[in-house]
Amino acid sequence: MVVIGAGFGGLWAARALHRAKVDVTLIDRNNFHTFLPLLYQVGAAELEPFAIARPVRTIVRGQENLQFLHASVRNVDVDRKLVHTARGVYAYDYLVLAPGTVAWDFAIPGVREHAFPLKTLEDGIALRSHVLARFEAAMHEPDPDRRAAILRFLIIGGGPTGVEFAGALSELIRGPLRKDYPAIRGEASVVLIEAADRLLTALPEPLGAYARRRLERMGVEVRLGTLVERVAAGQIGIRTGESGSEIAGDTVAWTAGVRGAPEAGSWGLPAGRDGRIETRPTLQVPGHDEVFAVGDIARTSEDGETLPMLAQVAMQGGEHAAVNIGRALRDEPPIPFHYRDKGLLAVIGRNAAVARLAGRNFTGFPAWLLWLGVHIVYLIGFRNRFAVLLNWAWDYVFFERVARILIPLRLATPRWPGDEPDGGG
Amino acid sequence: MVVIGAGFGGLWAARALHRAKVDVTLIDRNNFHTFLPLLYQVGAAELEPFAIARPVRTIVRGQENLQFLHASVRNVDVDRKLVHTARGVYAYDYLVLAPGTVAWDFAIPGVREHAFPLKTLEDGIALRSHVLARFEAAMHEPDPDRRAAILRFLIIGGGPTGVEFAGALSELIRGPLRKDYPAIRGEASVVLIEAADRLLTALPEPLGAYARRRLERMGVEVRLGTLVERVAAGQIGIRTGESGSEIAGDTVAWTAGVRGAPEAGSWGLPAGRDGRIETRPTLQVPGHDEVFAVGDIARTSEDGETLPMLAQVAMQGGEHAAVNIGRALRDEPPIPFHYRDKGLLAVIGRNAAVARLAGRNFTGFPAWLLWLGVHIVYLIGFRNRFAVLLNWAWDYVFFERVARILIPLRLATPRWPGDEPDGGG
Repeated sequence: MVVIGAGFGGLWAARALHRAKVDVTLIDRNNFHTFLPLLYQVGAAELEPFAIARPVRTIVRGQENLQFLHASVRNVDVDRKLVHTARGVYAYDYLVLAPGTVAWDFAIPGVREHAFPLKTLEDGIALRSHVLARFEAAMHEPDPDRRAAILRFLIIGGGPTGVEFAGALSELIRGPLRKDYPAIRGEASVVLIEAADRLLTALPEPLGAYARRRLERMGVEVRLGTLVERVAAGQIGIRTGESGSEIAGDTVAWTAGVRGAPEAGSWGLPAGRDGRIETRPTLQVPGHDEVFAVGDIARTSEDGETLPMLAQVAMQGGEHAAVNIGRALRDEPPIPFHYRDKGLLAVIGRNAAVARLAGRNFTGFPAWLLWLGVHIVYLIGFRNRFAVLLNWAWDYVFFERVARILIPLRLATPRWPGDEPDGGG
Repeated sequence: MVVIGAGFGGLWAARALHRAKVDVTLIDRNNFHTFLPLLYQVGAAELEPFAIARPVRTIVRGQENLQFLHASVRNVDVDRKLVHTARGVYAYDYLVLAPGTVAWDFAIPGVREHAFPLKTLEDGIALRSHVLARFEAAMHEPDPDRRAAILRFLIIGGGPTGVEFAGALSELIRGPLRKDYPAIRGEASVVLIEAADRLLTALPEPLGAYARRRLERMGVEVRLGTLVERVAAGQIGIRTGESGSEIAGDTVAWTAGVRGAPEAGSWGLPAGRDGRIETRPTLQVPGHDEVFAVGDIARTSEDGETLPMLAQVAMQGGEHAAVNIGRALRDEPPIPFHYRDKGLLAVIGRNAAVARLAGRNFTGFPAWLLWLGVHIVYLIGFRNRFAVLLNWAWDYVFFERVARILIPLRLATPRWPGDEPDGGG
């Protein structure tokens, strides 16, 4: 059988099959698993990219019924039960589909060209490099208006990623960057833009209100009820109620929309307009009992409510798909998925987070401790956990960031001096 | 005054000027200083790239007479005493020139196109990505000869970098990669090629012989007295004595030659054929008393011998240039540089190194301990030191590598799903 995607859904499914009498081929285009809940910290230069990634082969080492395939999937032929990859064709009897989601621009003009998505490790590195480079650029701009635009960071989307990224960015700017760029005094700004009338709509209203107050106290400008109409080089067009206006800013981070990995629909599976696949309660894809969809690609309902796109839902869904495949192998009927809600968390900054847990709301330091504990426990692999903890501890004590190196990103090919114009020094 | 280059030479010069009554502009094309002696460990996926880099602004934070300029140098006008950069023109009264060296292909055909240099952090990342990707590629190659070529790593140059990289690569292959790729059994090989008749020619003969024995015991094939005549895709042409032959191998790492940063010569400074600048004993550039050359770009002689290209020489040279600039400001004549030899070290692997210290030779575990201590002490910045130590300790205890993530490198621009063909998963 085949598992597509080594994110939380696919990886947890593959691992849960370790005792099943099946050969599992796990396919991912990256050779590593990414701990996406902390990606925003890579974007804000708070964590080194390596701290949230771990080689898939190392994670599944020792699982004898599993082989990992480092390849892109080109097509899934659901009729012939074949997965076509850049590295050969793989037949399956059962398929777990967990390719996740990708950033979605809602067809707003200019988003694709000018805004940074934050969905992959590469996205995180690119955004981080761009942010750090803005500060160097600002040092050489005499015009105060242009300087302010260079140093204005516009974040679109007030969900957990937008809120967490806004908080982390604000701390980066007011902490270590202020020390490294004493010439830039209070000119950098963070604007968080959300179409709804409050932040964190997936959480109870008081938590969204707390996040807003807290972010504003950290200097973040929060604009609610504001639609982004277009993104251009150096500015965005917004609309609040009836009035449209522009905000100048060289950096636009896009956390507003995601859609199912676009290929899924083109493989003849019943994907919705947003590319996600509506599953049965058993996680099976209608019309293809041997195909299970888990993680963010899957739109699964329980008691009439669609389950949220969360790491927890993906992990539990992956394990449940494995259970149902095991049952099918024993000729037992599949059972419906039941999500065990472990709560919702979002961190805003130093000592500040919001949490919904066991029917209760938490804010401030207690929520932050909860968030810290949960993320450390769930980070895969002890070594990474330790490195992350170390970074955090350092950050916490010294208000310092360790990941501010601007690596010039290039393709992984030989590069020789003189291949492009370059000065000495 | 201006310092070009934030390597060991330039950075140490700039820092040593902290009490001088001068305004120092330190220029580098990167926003970080790289601890180059450990670059080979990045190439061998032994250290995370960030562990050997640190932001220049953080290093020089608090030095009030210093400003850092993140820019490429386009030209130095030694007559008008102007430094032209991508971000403006800077006048100087004194100039410290420390742009270092770049890889040099000796005009051997194909080297530039097919071999990986190992001189910058980018080089290290590119080489490391290439090495890791070979293992994934080999998993899908049925032909045993092609598999062997995919997994053959050819290292040109038996100096410290070549020896250290060969040792680290061999340990990577025989340690963690063997665990992650159990299907590849003993098919990977490392070949170290040196034109001279022994390794480590800068060290006494017994140390070179020890390094060779030790590498061979680790499975590295050492070819001495062997010239590389050409490099092509997937193979190199070599000549040993009268007989020429080919070795198939997808990876060629080039550590054989360096030359002075090529711009220096074109700026009207007296650079030799290898781009390095012959200095006076005072580190001044002949004909330009106000220009000091330090680090690898400088060819400085003491007692008739040219000083080696070492971090120690660069650091001490940088500090000495600062001393002579201080003297010039007080109308005192410059004094000649005297290098305090702190020894030479090269590490081969776990518990194995060679060292020349205070006129004595050391090998094996004692030399390895020396190497470890020296490198930790000299690594700039406590945090990095700690991270490096942690990685090493982990490696040592668990025979593990932490840096095996294959980050798809791209330019730091927004990238949206669908911008290029990509499969799901």
